[in-house]
Amino acid sequence: MDKIEHIGIAVKDIEASNKLFASLFGEPHYKMEEVASEGVKTSFFKTGPNKIELLEATHPDSPIAKFIEKKGEGIHHIAFAVSDIKAEIKRLKAEGFTVLNEEPKHGADNKLVAFMHPKTTNGVLIELCEDR
Amino acid sequence: MDKIEHIGIAVKDIEASNKLFASLFGEPHYKMEEVASEGVKTSFFKTGPNKIELLEATHPDSPIAKFIEKKGEGIHHIAFAVSDIKAEIKRLKAEGFTVLNEEPKHGADNKLVAFMHPKTTNGVLIELCEDR
Repeated sequence: MDKIEHIGIAVKDIEASNKLFASLFGEPHYKMEEVASEGVKTSFFKTGPNKIELLEATHPDSPIAKFIEKKGEGIHHIAFAVSDIKAEIKRLKAEGFTVLNEEPKHGADNKLVAFMHPKTTNGVLIELCEDR
Repeated sequence: MDKIEHIGIAVKDIEASNKLFASLFGEPHYKMEEVASEGVKTSFFKTGPNKIELLEATHPDSPIAKFIEKKGEGIHHIAFAVSDIKAEIKRLKAEGFTVLNEEPKHGADNKLVAFMHPKTTNGVLIELCEDR
């Protein structure tokens, strides 16, 4: 695993949060993207070599809607960059971690992604992502 | 604000979590440090240009003990690197954010740090840190 590719933050109102994070970072988001398969609208900010991804649910069954209902707005996941996601999934499973996606799936920002169950990672939802 | 300097993760048992994150990253932590003023024992891992900081409470009144009691183990804060923390505190206060430390204080890893109240940052506890 290499750098923190991004941190995903669950928000209720992405337009309001775009303004808030633009004030925080001193520059606006550089793109927005909807990932229909995940039920989310996303927005990206650059922070040096890393990114912050805001996530707003697009329907009530979206994992983000459920997360906010349970825990409120806040940090949802950490994504680490990997160069070979299939090899990394294999390695992590052999180490005893629960990887939720046997096969990597298409995520936002033109990535192949896989998630690891927070039960095996100290309560942290971890995403692996490889550039496509 | 520049890169994500580190992500702080609250854990119950830092020795057990050191093993877990060593398996996750494929390499061990590179240092441990106790910050008596914060009531925490910390452990650091490198992930490319970023760090992961594990935090275990050293007494029941530690903010980390209270966090775990309320929310369980998991991501506690995001720290962003800043080059001039005093100027950044001033800028953020002018933008309407609640900065919890008027004056930066000494944190782990030889940094000057200041925290921002999560109420004004979408539920995210943000730390600013400047190298001393």
